[in-house]
Amino acid sequence: MSRDPALAERYIDGLIADGDLRAAGEALATMPQWLVVDVLERTEARDRGVMFRLLAKDTASSVFEDLDPPLQSELIHDLHDEQVRDIFAELDPDDRAGLIDELPAKVANRLMRELDPEEQALTAAVLGYQVGSVGRRMSPEYVSTHPDTTAGQTLERVKQRIDQTETIYALPVTDNERHLVGMVGLRSVMKADPETPIRDLMNDAVSARAIESDETAARRAADERLIVMPIVDKEDRLVGILTIDDALQILEDADSEDVARQGGAEPLGRPYLSTPFRALVRSRIVWLLVLALGATLTVQVLEVFESTLEQVVALSLFVPLIIGTGGNTGNQAATTVTRALALGDVRKRDVARVLWQEARTGFTLGLILGGVAFAVAGLVYGMDFGLVIGLTLLTLCTIAASVGGIMPLLASAVRADPAVFSNPFISTFVDATGLIVYFLIARAVLGL
Amino acid sequence: MSRDPALAERYIDGLIADGDLRAAGEALATMPQWLVVDVLERTEARDRGVMFRLLAKDTASSVFEDLDPPLQSELIHDLHDEQVRDIFAELDPDDRAGLIDELPAKVANRLMRELDPEEQALTAAVLGYQVGSVGRRMSPEYVSTHPDTTAGQTLERVKQRIDQTETIYALPVTDNERHLVGMVGLRSVMKADPETPIRDLMNDAVSARAIESDETAARRAADERLIVMPIVDKEDRLVGILTIDDALQILEDADSEDVARQGGAEPLGRPYLSTPFRALVRSRIVWLLVLALGATLTVQVLEVFESTLEQVVALSLFVPLIIGTGGNTGNQAATTVTRALALGDVRKRDVARVLWQEARTGFTLGLILGGVAFAVAGLVYGMDFGLVIGLTLLTLCTIAASVGGIMPLLASAVRADPAVFSNPFISTFVDATGLIVYFLIARAVLGL
Repeated sequence: MSRDPALAERYIDGLIADGDLRAAGEALATMPQWLVVDVLERTEARDRGVMFRLLAKDTASSVFEDLDPPLQSELIHDLHDEQVRDIFAELDPDDRAGLIDELPAKVANRLMRELDPEEQALTAAVLGYQVGSVGRRMSPEYVSTHPDTTAGQTLERVKQRIDQTETIYALPVTDNERHLVGMVGLRSVMKADPETPIRDLMNDAVSARAIESDETAARRAADERLIVMPIVDKEDRLVGILTIDDALQILEDADSEDVARQGGAEPLGRPYLSTPFRALVRSRIVWLLVLALGATLTVQVLEVFESTLEQVVALSLFVPLIIGTGGNTGNQAATTVTRALALGDVRKRDVARVLWQEARTGFTLGLILGGVAFAVAGLVYGMDFGLVIGLTLLTLCTIAASVGGIMPLLASAVRADPAVFSNPFISTFVDATGLIVYFLIARAVLGL
Repeated sequence: MSRDPALAERYIDGLIADGDLRAAGEALATMPQWLVVDVLERTEARDRGVMFRLLAKDTASSVFEDLDPPLQSELIHDLHDEQVRDIFAELDPDDRAGLIDELPAKVANRLMRELDPEEQALTAAVLGYQVGSVGRRMSPEYVSTHPDTTAGQTLERVKQRIDQTETIYALPVTDNERHLVGMVGLRSVMKADPETPIRDLMNDAVSARAIESDETAARRAADERLIVMPIVDKEDRLVGILTIDDALQILEDADSEDVARQGGAEPLGRPYLSTPFRALVRSRIVWLLVLALGATLTVQVLEVFESTLEQVVALSLFVPLIIGTGGNTGNQAATTVTRALALGDVRKRDVARVLWQEARTGFTLGLILGGVAFAVAGLVYGMDFGLVIGLTLLTLCTIAASVGGIMPLLASAVRADPAVFSNPFISTFVDATGLIVYFLIARAVLGL
């Protein structure tokens, strides 16, 4: 059996199309779980339901867990109530909360009511936090220990509760009021003499508030290389843990979102091939319309300078080159600073440093590009023309890099997504500004 | 003491500028390690050396480990030979290999010679694999077990070797010839009866070949939510492990690279504020020149149609809007598909599906945008003009989305970075194509 998801999917699809469900089920049963997940993610909604029903019960639950919530929600409509109830009961509370966001309220309520009380309470704890907060992504199932407990006692406790927790590899240490006082790795616990109190083994905890943004918290966990980050409420009481695999998922989603928005589209939130064509259109049309609306500004600028254009039609030859270069310079700066912000390498209050850095960079880039353009355009179209193009690029690159650099910081200061706010804004701004700069310099140099 | 790195850095910088090194050292000593790392990453190279020398010896090693290799390499030039030797000896073999890539060969050789033989061998094992392969990023320090060993014996072995391994939380299982036969979680080992053989506890291993790309391997580890992924040679013998925190680092770097290249710049490979202004210029100038060179194509296209432009100067008013919209549509498609490729949601052989999906999407987007443009431009500039703009947008959006969608796949088929190849190429291609389409339609409709 090939391990290429494209081939595997075509194979299973073929069997289903032929009506040979038994063979399809047998083929699925021989595949490793990741391949089954990949195949489901590549298939159309209708076939996905058929395939999923062919999976063995145990496999089905763990495959379901690995799917994105929008796919989970679509699948649920294809399954029997009983099967849905079983799968829902087996999900971790945080995954359950993720699915609930996608379901119609009626279905969600019914499923919640059918859970046993303990699972209901755990899920409710996660649902109590806003979407986008780390509280919503944490696991409320953990084993904690106490500073006065010994290593031996802790190890016993871990063994007892080994099935009721998301991880045992790092344990939060709390006092009698459930306040977080430290973290201890299972490794230190195992290594220590059994009589050692946890107090002597624990480290300061790097934690996150449950109401903090999930991306900020996950980035901190990643930077600190934590397998487990404890999550606390505003009184510093432990309410859950964020495991590194969940942190990784959060960061991957956040990066997908940034990438999509920098490309001027909304994130899909689901695998590409499983995305219906209408959803693709929806994720793009709004931005295209907004950007086209912004671009009408360039039409207006050009109208203002129409008489100049009529006098020297050759000026219009360079319009795409000039606004293109301006846009590229602006995008470079915006992309670099947006990423630095996402990684926490730059903060809002660094605006002056970034401006200084980008203005110098833009000026230098403009000097090089403008110099080349002056030489080339000067040779082909005459010195005057070369001077116009060279000076325009010098000015525009300086402006574009400066604006591109500080725009993401300003966006994040007003709590907008830097990735959205920066690139689309910059295209519009730089295009219009570039044209104004170009024609003003042309008028001055060419004496129009 | 504030926990804002911007403030903390300004404070320490101030103390150093005043020459009060003792106070600076004391302030650094009170900070959590992540804050010290952040402060160092924000500081200029000269101050960074001063600050680093103020750190306590133990802190210094672990802070050093958290810095990016380019910063590590700069720091090394500021430290005494002895201090360098100590720090180098304490690094993990994979981190050591990362640093060696940044050091002058002479320094690297001297440091390697000064290592004890065992560490030398471990480092050499990692250095034996190419940069960019997962072998280069793996840890050769692990504890493995055997299918016939019992859970109790395994636990004993883990305890004995607890200090000589990167992680104990998941153990590779190997046969007598060191072939990988499975993986077992410490959790299952602890939970099981001590007499149970590992054979009954282990699962199939999801592994990576050492020569595989680090990004592919890390993405697999992340998708499978593995804390530890075993790395094997071409005979399937275990050679190392990739831990999830290293996987996360690899993915973060890969995403940074994609983001930078989609923005038309080379990745910095180090925190933004610590990047000298010349390095910023270097990371951008080549792309700007290449893109500007590509843009001269638009100058040539416009020259071909110069007589048309002279007849109807108003046509030039819409040039920025049209090529801008085409570029945006192409970028949306390219960005979406590049990300889907990076996430493994789309494979090279999906080119037909992607083309069909994007062509439909582009046509629909073009229908909407072209419709709006026809109505608006028709009202303001007359029906003929509206028709030209509308038809151009419809055609261009279809072309741009199709080309934008398949370009990343073609790039990856010829082993180029999809992120580089796609967006810059698309700007150039779509700008030139857009102009040709525009003027051909204009000539036909306006009867020029």
